[in-house]
Amino acid sequence: MATHDLGVLPAFDLDIPTLLDISREGGIGGRTRRYEKFAGDMGGVYRDGDAWRADVEARGSDRLVYWVDDHRYQEGPGALVVGTSTLLPGRVGDEFAFTRGHLHEVADRAELYYCLKGRGVLLLETIDGRSEAIELSPGKAVDVPGHWIHRSVNVGDEPFVTLFCYAADAGQNYAIIGDANGMKSLVVTDGAGGWTTVPNSDHRGYRA
Amino acid sequence: MATHDLGVLPAFDLDIPTLLDISREGGIGGRTRRYEKFAGDMGGVYRDGDAWRADVEARGSDRLVYWVDDHRYQEGPGALVVGTSTLLPGRVGDEFAFTRGHLHEVADRAELYYCLKGRGVLLLETIDGRSEAIELSPGKAVDVPGHWIHRSVNVGDEPFVTLFCYAADAGQNYAIIGDANGMKSLVVTDGAGGWTTVPNSDHRGYRA
Repeated sequence: MATHDLGVLPAFDLDIPTLLDISREGGIGGRTRRYEKFAGDMGGVYRDGDAWRADVEARGSDRLVYWVDDHRYQEGPGALVVGTSTLLPGRVGDEFAFTRGHLHEVADRAELYYCLKGRGVLLLETIDGRSEAIELSPGKAVDVPGHWIHRSVNVGDEPFVTLFCYAADAGQNYAIIGDANGMKSLVVTDGAGGWTTVPNSDHRGYRA
Repeated sequence: MATHDLGVLPAFDLDIPTLLDISREGGIGGRTRRYEKFAGDMGGVYRDGDAWRADVEARGSDRLVYWVDDHRYQEGPGALVVGTSTLLPGRVGDEFAFTRGHLHEVADRAELYYCLKGRGVLLLETIDGRSEAIELSPGKAVDVPGHWIHRSVNVGDEPFVTLFCYAADAGQNYAIIGDANGMKSLVVTDGAGGWTTVPNSDHRGYRA
Protein backbone atom coordinates (compact mmCIF):
# COMPACT_ATOMS: atom_id res chain seq x y z
CA MET A 1 0.00 0.00 0.00
CA ALA A 2 1.47 3.35 -0.98
CA THR A 3 2.09 6.16 1.43
CA HIS A 4 -0.65 8.76 1.23
CA ASP A 5 0.22 12.39 0.91
CA LEU A 6 -1.63 15.22 2.56
CA GLY A 7 -5.04 15.69 1.06
CA VAL A 8 -5.26 12.30 -0.57
CA LEU A 9 -7.46 10.30 1.74
CA PRO A 10 -6.91 6.55 1.60
CA ALA A 11 -9.16 4.22 -0.35
CA PHE A 12 -10.26 2.44 2.83
CA ASP A 13 -12.52 3.94 5.47
CA LEU A 14 -10.60 6.11 7.88
CA ASP A 15 -10.09 4.69 11.35
CA ILE A 16 -12.12 6.39 14.08
CA PRO A 17 -9.96 7.30 17.09
CA THR A 18 -10.86 5.32 20.19
CA LEU A 19 -9.98 5.58 23.86
CA LEU A 20 -7.53 3.08 25.30
CA ASP A 21 -7.64 2.48 29.06
CA ILE A 22 -4.21 1.20 30.05
CA SER A 23 -3.88 -0.53 33.40
CA ARG A 24 -0.65 -0.31 35.38
CA GLU A 25 -1.18 -4.00 36.11
CA GLY A 26 -1.18 -4.65 32.37
CA GLY A 27 -4.19 -4.89 30.11
CA ILE A 28 -5.92 -2.48 27.78
CA GLY A 29 -9.57 -1.55 27.84
CA GLY A 30 -10.27 -1.18 24.13
CA ARG A 31 -7.78 -3.88 23.07
CA THR A 32 -8.25 -5.77 19.83
CA ARG A 33 -6.22 -8.82 20.92
CA ARG A 34 -4.92 -10.68 23.98
CA TYR A 35 -2.49 -13.57 23.97
CA GLU A 36 -1.10 -15.60 26.82
CA LYS A 37 1.99 -17.72 27.30
CA PHE A 38 2.08 -20.63 29.71
CA ALA A 39 4.98 -22.43 31.36
CA GLY A 40 4.51 -25.34 28.98
CA ASP A 41 5.05 -23.02 25.99
CA MET A 42 8.55 -22.16 27.12
CA GLY A 43 10.29 -25.49 26.45
CA GLY A 44 13.81 -25.08 25.10
CA VAL A 45 14.15 -21.38 25.79
CA TYR A 46 15.79 -21.53 29.22
CA ARG A 47 19.33 -22.95 29.31
CA ASP A 48 18.60 -25.16 32.31
CA GLY A 49 16.17 -27.63 30.75
CA ASP A 50 16.08 -29.80 33.88
CA ALA A 51 14.98 -26.82 35.96
CA TRP A 52 12.27 -25.97 33.42
CA ARG A 53 10.95 -29.57 33.38
CA ALA A 54 10.97 -29.75 37.18
CA ASP A 55 9.06 -26.47 37.35
CA VAL A 56 6.44 -27.65 34.86
CA GLU A 57 6.05 -30.97 36.69
CA ALA A 58 5.75 -29.28 40.07
CA ARG A 59 3.52 -26.33 39.12
CA GLY A 60 1.84 -27.38 35.89
CA SER A 61 2.34 -26.60 32.22
CA ASP A 62 -0.76 -24.40 32.20
CA ARG A 63 0.63 -21.85 34.63
CA LEU A 64 0.45 -18.36 33.06
CA VAL A 65 3.91 -16.81 32.68
CA TYR A 66 3.18 -13.72 30.57
CA TRP A 67 0.39 -12.10 28.61
CA VAL A 68 0.05 -9.33 26.11
CA ASP A 69 -2.84 -7.03 25.22
CA ASP A 70 -2.64 -4.91 22.11
CA HIS A 71 -4.66 -2.57 19.98
CA ARG A 72 -4.43 -1.96 16.28
CA TYR A 73 -6.63 -0.29 13.70
CA GLN A 74 -6.55 -1.22 10.04
CA GLU A 75 -3.07 -1.94 8.77
CA GLY A 76 -2.35 1.22 6.84
CA PRO A 77 1.30 1.87 6.11
CA GLY A 78 1.77 4.38 8.93
CA ALA A 79 -0.22 2.52 11.59
CA LEU A 80 1.06 1.75 15.09
CA VAL A 81 0.37 -1.13 17.44
CA VAL A 82 0.01 -0.17 21.12
CA GLY A 83 0.10 -2.81 23.82
CA THR A 84 0.99 -3.92 27.30
CA SER A 85 3.22 -6.83 28.26
CA THR A 86 2.81 -8.37 31.72
CA LEU A 87 5.62 -10.74 32.67
CA LEU A 88 5.20 -12.61 35.94
CA PRO A 89 8.19 -12.95 38.28
CA GLY A 90 10.16 -16.13 38.75
CA ARG A 91 13.34 -17.97 37.86
CA VAL A 92 14.18 -21.10 35.91
CA GLY A 93 17.48 -22.27 37.30
CA ASP A 94 19.64 -19.16 37.52
CA GLU A 95 17.76 -17.32 34.78
CA PHE A 96 15.11 -14.77 35.53
CA ALA A 97 11.74 -15.18 33.78
CA PHE A 98 11.71 -13.67 30.28
CA THR A 99 9.64 -13.26 27.14
CA ARG A 100 10.63 -15.16 24.03
CA GLY A 101 12.12 -12.08 22.42
CA HIS A 102 12.23 -11.11 18.77
CA LEU A 103 13.81 -9.14 15.99
CA HIS A 104 11.33 -7.30 13.81
CA GLU A 105 10.80 -8.97 10.46
CA VAL A 106 11.29 -5.54 8.98
CA ALA A 107 14.46 -5.26 11.00
CA ASP A 108 14.80 -1.47 10.99
CA ARG A 109 11.56 -0.94 12.90
CA ALA A 110 12.02 0.58 16.38
CA GLU A 111 9.85 -0.15 19.44
CA LEU A 112 9.14 1.87 22.55
CA TYR A 113 8.97 0.09 25.92
CA TYR A 114 7.79 2.25 28.82
CA CYS A 115 7.72 0.62 32.26
CA LEU A 116 4.42 0.85 34.14
CA LYS A 117 5.19 -1.47 37.06
CA GLY A 118 7.85 -3.74 38.51
CA ARG A 119 11.54 -4.09 37.85
CA GLY A 120 12.88 -5.59 34.69
CA VAL A 121 15.69 -5.65 32.21
CA LEU A 122 15.48 -5.12 28.49
CA LEU A 123 18.10 -7.39 26.94
CA LEU A 124 19.16 -6.16 23.48
CA GLU A 125 21.51 -7.78 20.97
CA THR A 126 22.53 -7.31 17.35
CA ILE A 127 23.29 -10.00 14.82
CA ASP A 128 26.90 -8.81 14.73
CA GLY A 129 27.41 -9.56 18.40
CA ARG A 130 26.63 -6.45 20.42
CA SER A 131 24.75 -6.96 23.69
CA GLU A 132 23.17 -4.43 26.06
CA ALA A 133 21.07 -4.82 29.20
CA ILE A 134 19.06 -1.86 30.49
CA GLU A 135 17.17 -1.93 33.76
CA LEU A 136 13.67 -0.51 33.81
CA SER A 137 11.44 0.57 36.68
CA PRO A 138 8.25 2.67 36.56
CA GLY A 139 8.74 5.80 34.45
CA LYS A 140 11.83 4.46 32.70
CA ALA A 141 11.76 3.61 29.01
CA VAL A 142 13.87 2.41 26.12
CA ASP A 143 13.23 3.30 22.50
CA VAL A 144 14.65 0.08 21.03
CA PRO A 145 16.36 1.10 17.79
CA GLY A 146 15.94 -0.93 14.65
CA HIS A 147 18.18 -3.98 14.17
CA TRP A 148 18.22 -4.91 17.87
CA ILE A 149 16.86 -8.28 18.98
CA HIS A 150 15.09 -7.63 22.27
CA ARG A 151 13.57 -9.50 25.18
CA SER A 152 11.99 -8.46 28.50
CA VAL A 153 13.30 -10.04 31.70
CA ASN A 154 11.64 -9.77 35.11
CA VAL A 155 14.34 -9.32 37.77
CA GLY A 156 11.92 -8.25 40.52
CA ASP A 157 9.33 -9.96 42.66
CA GLU A 158 6.15 -8.52 41.18
CA PRO A 159 4.79 -8.44 37.61
CA PHE A 160 6.96 -6.46 35.19
CA VAL A 161 4.56 -4.41 33.09
CA THR A 162 5.49 -2.35 30.04
CA LEU A 163 3.56 -0.23 27.57
CA PHE A 164 4.89 -0.78 24.06
CA CYS A 165 4.41 0.88 20.69
CA TYR A 166 5.72 -0.14 17.26
CA ALA A 167 4.92 0.17 13.59
CA ALA A 168 2.12 -2.19 12.57
CA ASP A 169 4.13 -3.40 9.57
CA ALA A 170 7.12 -4.47 11.71
CA GLY A 171 6.32 -8.14 12.28
CA GLN A 172 8.19 -10.43 14.67
CA ASN A 173 10.95 -12.91 13.94
CA TYR A 174 11.07 -15.21 16.97
CA ALA A 175 13.06 -18.00 15.31
CA ILE A 176 16.29 -16.04 15.14
CA ILE A 177 16.82 -16.60 18.88
CA GLY A 178 16.01 -20.30 18.83
CA ASP A 179 18.22 -20.88 15.80
CA ALA A 180 21.12 -19.33 17.74
CA ASN A 181 20.52 -21.55 20.80
CA GLY A 182 19.32 -18.56 22.77
CA MET A 183 20.51 -15.02 23.14
CA LYS A 184 24.21 -14.31 23.58
CA SER A 185 23.75 -13.10 27.17
CA LEU A 186 21.74 -14.54 30.03
CA VAL A 187 20.20 -12.43 32.80
CA VAL A 188 20.80 -14.39 35.99
CA THR A 189 20.76 -13.95 39.74
CA ASP A 190 23.91 -12.46 41.20
CA GLY A 191 23.34 -14.42 44.40
CA ALA A 192 22.80 -11.23 46.39
CA GLY A 193 19.26 -10.26 45.43
CA GLY A 194 20.25 -8.57 42.19
CA TRP A 195 20.89 -9.52 38.60
CA THR A 196 23.86 -9.75 36.30
CA THR A 197 24.56 -10.96 32.79
CA VAL A 198 26.71 -13.95 31.91
CA PRO A 199 27.61 -15.37 28.50
CA ASN A 200 25.38 -18.12 27.14
CA SER A 201 27.88 -20.85 26.32
CA ASP A 202 25.34 -22.54 24.01
CA HIS A 203 24.92 -19.44 21.83
CA ARG A 204 26.26 -20.05 18.34
CA GLY A 205 25.81 -16.62 16.81
CA TYR A 206 22.83 -15.16 15.01
CA ARG A 207 22.34 -16.23 11.43
CA ALA A 208 20.95 -13.62 9.09
CA MET B 1 16.79 5.29 2.51
CA ALA B 2 15.63 1.76 1.74
CA THR B 3 14.10 -0.57 4.26
CA HIS B 4 16.64 -3.04 5.52
CA ASP B 5 15.85 -6.71 5.58
CA LEU B 6 16.93 -9.10 8.28
CA GLY B 7 20.63 -9.65 8.20
CA VAL B 8 21.48 -6.64 6.13
CA LEU B 9 22.84 -4.16 8.63
CA PRO B 10 22.52 -0.52 7.60
CA ALA B 11 25.40 1.46 6.16
CA PHE B 12 25.37 3.84 9.13
CA ASP B 13 26.52 2.95 12.64
CA LEU B 14 23.78 1.23 14.60
CA ASP B 15 22.15 3.24 17.34
CA ILE B 16 23.05 2.18 20.86
CA PRO B 17 19.96 1.78 23.06
CA THR B 18 19.78 4.34 25.85
CA LEU B 19 17.69 4.74 28.96
CA LEU B 20 14.96 7.39 28.96
CA ASP B 21 13.78 8.69 32.32
CA ILE B 22 10.28 10.01 31.81
CA SER B 23 8.86 12.34 34.43
CA ARG B 24 5.15 12.37 35.16
CA GLU B 25 5.51 16.16 35.33
CA GLY B 26 6.84 16.09 31.77
CA GLY B 27 10.46 16.01 30.71
CA ILE B 28 12.79 13.24 29.62
CA GLY B 29 16.17 12.47 31.12
CA GLY B 30 18.10 11.44 28.02
CA ARG B 31 16.22 13.80 25.67
CA THR B 32 17.85 15.07 22.51
CA ARG B 33 15.69 18.20 22.22
CA ARG B 34 13.47 20.56 24.20
CA TYR B 35 11.28 23.31 22.81
CA GLU B 36 9.08 25.78 24.57
CA LYS B 37 6.08 27.84 23.54
CA PHE B 38 5.26 31.16 25.17
CA ALA B 39 2.03 33.14 25.33
CA GLY B 40 3.39 35.56 22.77
CA ASP B 41 3.84 32.72 20.26
CA MET B 42 0.13 31.94 20.25
CA GLY B 43 -1.16 35.03 18.40
CA GLY B 44 -3.98 34.25 16.02
CA VAL B 45 -4.68 30.75 17.24
CA TYR B 46 -7.41 31.50 19.79
CA ARG B 47 -10.70 32.76 18.37
CA ASP B 48 -10.98 35.54 20.96
CA GLY B 49 -8.08 37.77 19.90
CA ASP B 50 -9.00 40.46 22.39
CA ALA B 51 -8.81 37.99 25.25
CA TRP B 52 -5.41 36.77 24.01
CA ARG B 53 -4.03 40.33 23.76
CA ALA B 54 -5.37 41.23 27.21
CA ASP B 55 -3.75 38.11 28.65
CA VAL B 56 -0.38 38.89 27.05
CA GLU B 57 -0.55 42.49 28.24
CA ALA B 58 -1.49 41.49 31.76
CA ARG B 59 0.82 38.48 32.23
CA GLY B 60 3.57 38.96 29.66
CA SER B 61 4.33 37.49 26.25
CA ASP B 62 7.17 35.45 27.75
CA ARG B 63 4.94 33.31 29.95
CA LEU B 64 5.53 29.62 29.24
CA VAL B 65 2.37 27.90 27.98
CA TYR B 66 3.68 24.50 26.88
CA TRP B 67 6.92 22.64 26.36
CA VAL B 68 8.02 19.45 24.70
CA ASP B 69 10.96 17.13 25.33
CA ASP B 70 11.78 14.46 22.82
CA HIS B 71 14.33 11.82 22.00
CA ARG B 72 15.37 10.52 18.63
CA TYR B 73 18.26 8.46 17.34
CA GLN B 74 19.50 8.69 13.77
CA GLU B 75 16.72 9.04 11.25
CA GLY B 76 16.60 5.53 9.84
CA PRO B 77 13.40 4.63 8.02
CA GLY B 78 11.90 2.69 10.94
CA ALA B 79 12.91 5.09 13.72
CA LEU B 80 10.51 6.46 16.33
CA VAL B 81 10.44 9.75 18.19
CA VAL B 82 9.47 9.52 21.88
CA GLY B 83 8.53 12.62 23.83
CA THR B 84 6.53 14.33 26.51
CA SER B 85 4.21 17.30 26.06
CA THR B 86 3.45 19.47 29.08
CA LEU B 87 0.57 21.89 28.53
CA LEU B 88 -0.11 24.35 31.33
CA PRO B 89 -3.71 25.03 32.37
CA GLY B 90 -5.60 28.16 31.49
CA ARG B 91 -8.22 29.69 29.23
CA VAL B 92 -8.21 32.39 26.58
CA GLY B 93 -11.75 33.68 26.49
CA ASP B 94 -13.96 30.60 26.52
CA GLU B 95 -11.31 28.34 24.99
CA PHE B 96 -9.18 26.07 27.09
CA ALA B 97 -5.40 26.24 26.57
CA PHE B 98 -4.21 24.11 23.66
CA THR B 99 -1.20 23.18 21.57
CA ARG B 100 -0.96 24.42 18.00
CA GLY B 101 -1.91 21.02 16.61
CA HIS B 102 -0.79 19.39 13.41
CA LEU B 103 -1.36 16.88 10.67
CA HIS B 104 1.65 14.74 9.88
CA GLU B 105 3.38 15.78 6.67
CA VAL B 106 3.29 12.11 5.80
CA ALA B 107 -0.39 12.12 6.59
CA ASP B 108 -0.82 8.39 7.19
CA ARG B 109 1.53 8.33 10.17
CA ALA B 110 -0.17 7.49 13.48
CA GLU B 111 0.83 8.85 16.90
CA LEU B 112 0.33 7.48 20.40
CA TYR B 113 -0.61 9.87 23.21
CA TYR B 114 -0.59 8.35 26.70
CA CYS B 115 -1.66 10.60 29.58
CA LEU B 116 0.78 10.84 32.49
CA LYS B 117 -0.88 13.63 34.47
CA GLY B 118 -3.78 16.04 34.45
CA ARG B 119 -7.01 16.14 32.50
CA GLY B 120 -7.11 16.97 28.84
CA VAL B 121 -8.88 16.46 25.56
CA LEU B 122 -7.42 15.25 22.33
CA LEU B 123 -9.26 17.09 19.55
CA LEU B 124 -9.08 15.20 16.26
CA GLU B 125 -10.35 16.24 12.82
CA THR B 126 -10.08 15.06 9.23
CA ILE B 127 -9.82 17.20 6.14
CA ASP B 128 -13.22 15.91 5.02
CA GLY B 129 -14.94 17.30 8.09
CA ARG B 130 -15.01 14.66 10.79
CA SER B 131 -14.37 15.83 14.35
CA GLU B 132 -13.80 13.86 17.54
CA ALA B 133 -12.91 14.91 21.09
CA ILE B 134 -11.58 12.31 23.53
CA GLU B 135 -10.93 13.06 27.19
CA LEU B 136 -7.71 11.79 28.73
CA SER B 137 -6.67 11.34 32.33
CA PRO B 138 -3.71 9.38 33.72
CA GLY B 139 -3.55 5.89 32.22
CA LYS B 140 -5.79 6.76 29.27
CA ALA B 141 -4.42 6.91 25.75
CA VAL B 142 -5.34 7.47 22.14
CA ASP B 143 -3.51 5.93 19.21
CA VAL B 144 -4.23 8.76 16.75
CA PRO B 145 -4.75 7.08 13.38
CA GLY B 146 -3.19 8.51 10.26
CA HIS B 147 -5.01 11.34 8.46
CA TRP B 148 -6.30 12.93 11.66
CA ILE B 149 -5.29 16.50 12.51
CA HIS B 150 -4.81 16.55 16.29
CA ARG B 151 -4.33 18.99 19.13
CA SER B 152 -4.03 18.65 22.92
CA VAL B 153 -6.32 20.76 25.10
CA ASN B 154 -5.95 21.19 28.85
CA VAL B 155 -9.42 21.17 30.45
CA GLY B 156 -8.14 20.71 34.01
CA ASP B 157 -6.41 22.90 36.56
CA GLU B 158 -2.96 21.30 36.58
CA PRO B 159 -0.46 20.60 33.79
CA PHE B 160 -1.72 18.13 31.19
CA VAL B 161 1.20 15.79 30.48
CA THR B 162 1.31 13.16 27.76
CA LEU B 163 3.90 10.68 26.56
CA PHE B 164 3.89 10.51 22.76
CA CYS B 165 5.46 8.26 20.14
CA TYR B 166 5.45 8.58 16.36
CA ALA B 167 7.46 7.60 13.32
CA ALA B 168 10.53 9.82 12.90
CA ASP B 169 9.72 10.36 9.23
CA ALA B 170 6.21 11.71 9.95
CA GLY B 171 6.90 15.44 10.07
CA GLN B 172 4.40 18.08 11.17
CA ASN B 173 2.16 20.29 9.06
CA TYR B 174 1.08 23.11 11.36
CA ALA B 175 -0.11 25.49 8.62
CA ILE B 176 -3.15 23.41 7.71
CA ILE B 177 -4.94 24.65 10.86
CA GLY B 178 -4.00 28.30 10.39
CA ASP B 179 -5.02 28.22 6.74
CA ALA B 180 -8.46 26.97 7.81
CA ASN B 181 -8.89 29.75 10.42
CA GLY B 182 -8.55 27.22 13.20
CA MET B 183 -9.92 23.76 13.80
CA LYS B 184 -13.57 23.05 13.05
CA SER B 185 -14.43 22.56 16.73
CA LEU B 186 -13.48 24.57 19.78
CA VAL B 187 -13.08 23.08 23.25
CA VAL B 188 -14.68 25.59 25.61
CA THR B 189 -15.96 25.87 29.14
CA ASP B 190 -19.48 24.58 29.69
CA GLY B 191 -19.98 27.14 32.43
CA ALA B 192 -20.27 24.40 35.06
CA GLY B 193 -16.65 23.38 35.60
CA GLY B 194 -16.51 21.07 32.61
CA TRP B 195 -15.85 21.30 28.90
CA THR B 196 -17.81 21.00 25.71
CA THR B 197 -17.20 21.50 22.02
CA VAL B 198 -18.82 24.20 19.90
CA PRO B 199 -18.43 24.90 16.18
CA ASN B 200 -15.78 27.43 15.18
CA SER B 201 -17.73 29.87 13.05
CA ASP B 202 -14.49 31.17 11.51
CA HIS B 203 -13.46 27.74 10.21
CA ARG B 204 -13.46 27.62 6.43
CA GLY B 205 -12.63 23.98 5.84
CA TYR B 206 -9.26 22.32 5.50
CA ARG B 207 -7.51 22.71 2.19
CA ALA B 208 -5.48 19.72 1.06
